[in-house]
Amino acid sequence: MKTSPVYVLGGYQTDFAVNYAKAGQNFLDVFNDTVRGTLEATGVEAKEIQSAHVANFMGELMFGQGHLGAFFLETDPAFAGLPTMRHEAACASGSVAVLAAMAAIEAGRYDCVCVLGVEMEKCLPAGETAKHLGAAAWVERECEGIRFPWPHMFSRLADEYDARYGLDQKHLAALGKKNYDNARRNPNAQTRSWAMTDDHFAENDELNPVIEGRIRRQDCSQVTDGGAAVLLASADFAQRYAARTGRALESIPRIKGWGHHTARIAFDDKVAASKNDRYVFPFVRETIMDAMGRANISDVYAFDAIEVHDCFTPTEYMAIDHFGLTAPGESWKAIEEGVVAFGGRVPINASGGLIGLGHPVGATGIRMVLDGWKQTTESAGEYQVPGARNIGTLNIGGSATTAVSFVVGV
Amino acid sequence: MKTSPVYVLGGYQTDFAVNYAKAGQNFLDVFNDTVRGTLEATGVEAKEIQSAHVANFMGELMFGQGHLGAFFLETDPAFAGLPTMRHEAACASGSVAVLAAMAAIEAGRYDCVCVLGVEMEKCLPAGETAKHLGAAAWVERECEGIRFPWPHMFSRLADEYDARYGLDQKHLAALGKKNYDNARRNPNAQTRSWAMTDDHFAENDELNPVIEGRIRRQDCSQVTDGGAAVLLASADFAQRYAARTGRALESIPRIKGWGHHTARIAFDDKVAASKNDRYVFPFVRETIMDAMGRANISDVYAFDAIEVHDCFTPTEYMAIDHFGLTAPGESWKAIEEGVVAFGGRVPINASGGLIGLGHPVGATGIRMVLDGWKQTTESAGEYQVPGARNIGTLNIGGSATTAVSFVVGV
Repeated sequence: MKTSPVYVLGGYQTDFAVNYAKAGQNFLDVFNDTVRGTLEATGVEAKEIQSAHVANFMGELMFGQGHLGAFFLETDPAFAGLPTMRHEAACASGSVAVLAAMAAIEAGRYDCVCVLGVEMEKCLPAGETAKHLGAAAWVERECEGIRFPWPHMFSRLADEYDARYGLDQKHLAALGKKNYDNARRNPNAQTRSWAMTDDHFAENDELNPVIEGRIRRQDCSQVTDGGAAVLLASADFAQRYAARTGRALESIPRIKGWGHHTARIAFDDKVAASKNDRYVFPFVRETIMDAMGRANISDVYAFDAIEVHDCFTPTEYMAIDHFGLTAPGESWKAIEEGVVAFGGRVPINASGGLIGLGHPVGATGIRMVLDGWKQTTESAGEYQVPGARNIGTLNIGGSATTAVSFVVGV
Repeated sequence: MKTSPVYVLGGYQTDFAVNYAKAGQNFLDVFNDTVRGTLEATGVEAKEIQSAHVANFMGELMFGQGHLGAFFLETDPAFAGLPTMRHEAACASGSVAVLAAMAAIEAGRYDCVCVLGVEMEKCLPAGETAKHLGAAAWVERECEGIRFPWPHMFSRLADEYDARYGLDQKHLAALGKKNYDNARRNPNAQTRSWAMTDDHFAENDELNPVIEGRIRRQDCSQVTDGGAAVLLASADFAQRYAARTGRALESIPRIKGWGHHTARIAFDDKVAASKNDRYVFPFVRETIMDAMGRANISDVYAFDAIEVHDCFTPTEYMAIDHFGLTAPGESWKAIEEGVVAFGGRVPINASGGLIGLGHPVGATGIRMVLDGWKQTTESAGEYQVPGARNIGTLNIGGSATTAVSFVVGV
């Protein structure tokens, strides 16, 4: 069966430095900013959009509102009647929304679909937000008596790497610093103007306090209010769009490949199952290989850049070897050799990633695809990777429970 | 583009009379019962299922757990790595999950997909549950100071019908009674053995007290713990399944048509927009017409039966004219003439519906498709509509905000 390829016409990301909650704004303001930005950035009119997918993780817990798909309609009268649905897979919510939107296009249901992610994380005190984020783990089994479930869980991932292969904290700190550094080039990054010194990435209990176990403050992604959206289109729509905007169809990025797997939700169950595997998270590896396989990419070094889910530095450390940039357990080599640095062979998180750019969880997977579009259309400004043609993404929900990977390329 | 038709291989519904919470069981028990029941009922093995979609509305609010897609894996070791995602559109969550699963099959991504809906509604006191259900409305605008948001909202729908066309309460009461009566034939119905008299459907403040406005107790759907699942398959898989189970492919029901639209979330905005329309909810009408159109059904009387979203009796009253069984505002005629009664020309909610059978919200849309499968495979036992070949469904989220309709048929 021949299905339609899925094109990315562009999209919009809100400025992740904006604290919507503090400004007295709510999720609908994020919706409005994101939709309007997307229409303006792409030149596509509201009435051309035939369906919308909304990704959100914590709407119910943070502000008591469900049914968020429907709020897409509140942003423009032209959306009356628009088919919408909301998707959730914890921090991979954005990517599963993209998967669902792609399938609808491939099936011939719609030709132009908006996928929008939104999250409000600053409207409650930090402790409550941390507790609600725990809903992505097996709450009953994994969160009892844990103050910060995710720093705790990803500290345990670092423990696991240490036990299997050895791990030097300095390599985690280097990833944190890289992502903050990269964020300075990104005009939408939450931390872009933060005054950081080397001491902020050192074992300095004042500037870089321990949060849980091996995780210090600068090993953590940001708590962010924000949204991101992409417009996805069928070949037919993309062809018309290319014609009217005076460009070649080939210059419009496509989602060339995708991977999607789920592992058991509890961290203990995952690492027990992978005890004799080459990889700590074999289904993350499989997800990436599926995406590469569908995109006909056999060598990871064919990627011009990669955007990965650095919710904490050990997660990015894991992503490096799971992508195959090094042998398992040897991610430190790619760090030391500058492979993943901006300007390296395969820069990781040129955008700044979740640590430097920010992490409104429902938006993150979509933001990654958008950054794939930016890089492959030479629109990434100061954080452009020159001549980028193929960008890989890795978005995960929970402790690598849901894993989704895309290849965006021209 | 030719896409694969989507077949329904069967599925399973838990006994909605079971109070899981009271029995000390939780959502995972519902998952387990539903998945095991589905495997047993269809004879499909766990390892044959290639992807799972989970529908749930209130997991976060009722028991603090998100990321429910992943829990599918906890039901059988063979599901390790299975791609999963969770979908939400309030009480239409089940139907949007079916839409997403269908698109994945039509796109050729997977050949055998499980769609499972689960909801726990009895694990908190009734007042809290009612509040959480309000998350399907525009909480900030519509729920302030309202004790029971949904009885309130659908009482207002009855008001709207009364204002536009006139409405006699006795017709609403008749729909409630019909659904309770139908439920007696359904061995999985929550109310099947409840002792009800005519007084329970009268304006009797003891046996049928007012909940909000025009809504009395027996006008309301049930608060239910439960799950439902269906296995959907491509033509290739269905062909092999037919061969190995010794039946003709043509005897396996398909989803012949679907419709999906969203209207503005606030009830006031919806009725203001439809002021000059023939229908109170024009997008519900359009949703049904889309489903019928895709199924090549032009006459509503070609349906052998219909399962509709009787969250409250005014909703079913609305569904009758929106399906076109009567002219707008004349649903009472179909009630008086017995058209929608069991044994009538087009029985509505032979299963008992949300009022008689029960309404675990995330499961409801899936349960409707399953009842479509049961009817069109002559498996509905005592509530079988003889010779049923085409069943329509209408599942709505919020105050008819998200509307989804399917045609299941052979």
